[in-house]
Amino acid sequence: MQAAVYAAVGELVSEGHRDSVTVPQVAERAGVNPTSVYRRWGSIDALLSEVAVAALTGDEPLPDTGTIVGDLREWASIIATDITRPQRIVYLRAMVGARVGTPGACPCWDVREQQAELMLARAADRGETVPSVRQVLEHVIAPLYHHVVFGLDVDDEYAHHLVDDVLAMSTRVPAGR
Amino acid sequence: MQAAVYAAVGELVSEGHRDSVTVPQVAERAGVNPTSVYRRWGSIDALLSEVAVAALTGDEPLPDTGTIVGDLREWASIIATDITRPQRIVYLRAMVGARVGTPGACPCWDVREQQAELMLARAADRGETVPSVRQVLEHVIAPLYHHVVFGLDVDDEYAHHLVDDVLAMSTRVPAGR
Repeated sequence: MQAAVYAAVGELVSEGHRDSVTVPQVAERAGVNPTSVYRRWGSIDALLSEVAVAALTGDEPLPDTGTIVGDLREWASIIATDITRPQRIVYLRAMVGARVGTPGACPCWDVREQQAELMLARAADRGETVPSVRQVLEHVIAPLYHHVVFGLDVDDEYAHHLVDDVLAMSTRVPAGR
Repeated sequence: MQAAVYAAVGELVSEGHRDSVTVPQVAERAGVNPTSVYRRWGSIDALLSEVAVAALTGDEPLPDTGTIVGDLREWASIIATDITRPQRIVYLRAMVGARVGTPGACPCWDVREQQAELMLARAADRGETVPSVRQVLEHVIAPLYHHVVFGLDVDDEYAHHLVDDVLAMSTRVPAGR
C-alpha cells in the first residue's frame, strides 16, 4: 500500500493539486480505502511530510572526505542540488502549506540533525575544531530550505558560503585555548 | 479597493482557505470585480505576497540601541514575536504554498535587507566590527522564517542565539588586523 499511496501523492502534487490534496483523493488515486490511509498516516499533513522526507532524504550518501570543511561543503552541495529539483521544491512547499500550528519538530530536520551529528563527531575524533550540531542546522540547513521554499536562489556557491560562515563561528575556539 | 481586498484575503486565510484561495473568491468577498484584482495584482501569488508583507513588516520601529549586538538582538526579538503570532504563521505558510518556481526574490526578504543595511551602516560608522548584510540575512532572518514555516520552535532565546552566532563570524576580523 505504501508504494501506491506515495505514487498517488507524487502524481497529485505534480499535477498541481499541492494546495488542496486530501486523503480521499489520494486513496482514490491509489486504489485503496481512505480508512486505511487515515489509520496508517492519521492526516494528510503527516502523509505529505512522510512522502516529502522519503523524497528529500532518500539515498544520499553521507560525505566522508577526511575534513569537516570537505564533509560539510559536499553535504551542503548534495542537499542544495537535491532540494532545488522542481519536483522537490513542489513537495517542500506542499509540506509547508499543509503544516498547522507549531508541532515543534519537523521530520526533515531530524534526519539532517542525525547526519550533522555523525560528521561532527567524526571530525571531533580527528581533533578538528567544530561548530555545534545546532549551529550547523541553524546556519547551513535552515537557510538552504528557507531559500528553496521562499523562491530565492540556491546554488553550490551559496551552499559553500553557508559552510564557511558556520566554520568561522568555531575557529575562534582554538585561538582562545 | 486595497483595504477591502486585504481584509478579504485576511478573512479567507483565517477561515482555513489558505491552501486554495483564488482571485475570484477574494474579489467576491471584497465586493469588487475580479478583473480589477487581476489588473492590479496580476495573480493570487502576488496578492498573497503583498498582503503577507504588509502584515509582516508593517510598523515595527527599527532598533537604535547604540551597539550592533543590542540592535540585532532587539530586531530579532521583534521579528520573532511578530512572525510567531498564529495569524502571521498562517500568512507566511500561505505565501510559501502559493509560490511557484524560483523567482529569485522575495518581498519580505527585501524589507529585511534594507533594515539590516541601515543598522550595520550605523554600527560601522561607530567603528564597530560588523558582519556583512548577507551574513545577517542568511544567519538570523532565514533561520527565523525557516523555523516558523516548518513549525519548529522560535522564541527570544532562539533569536538571540542566532545573533550571537552571526556576531561570532565577524569578531575574528579585528584579531587578524
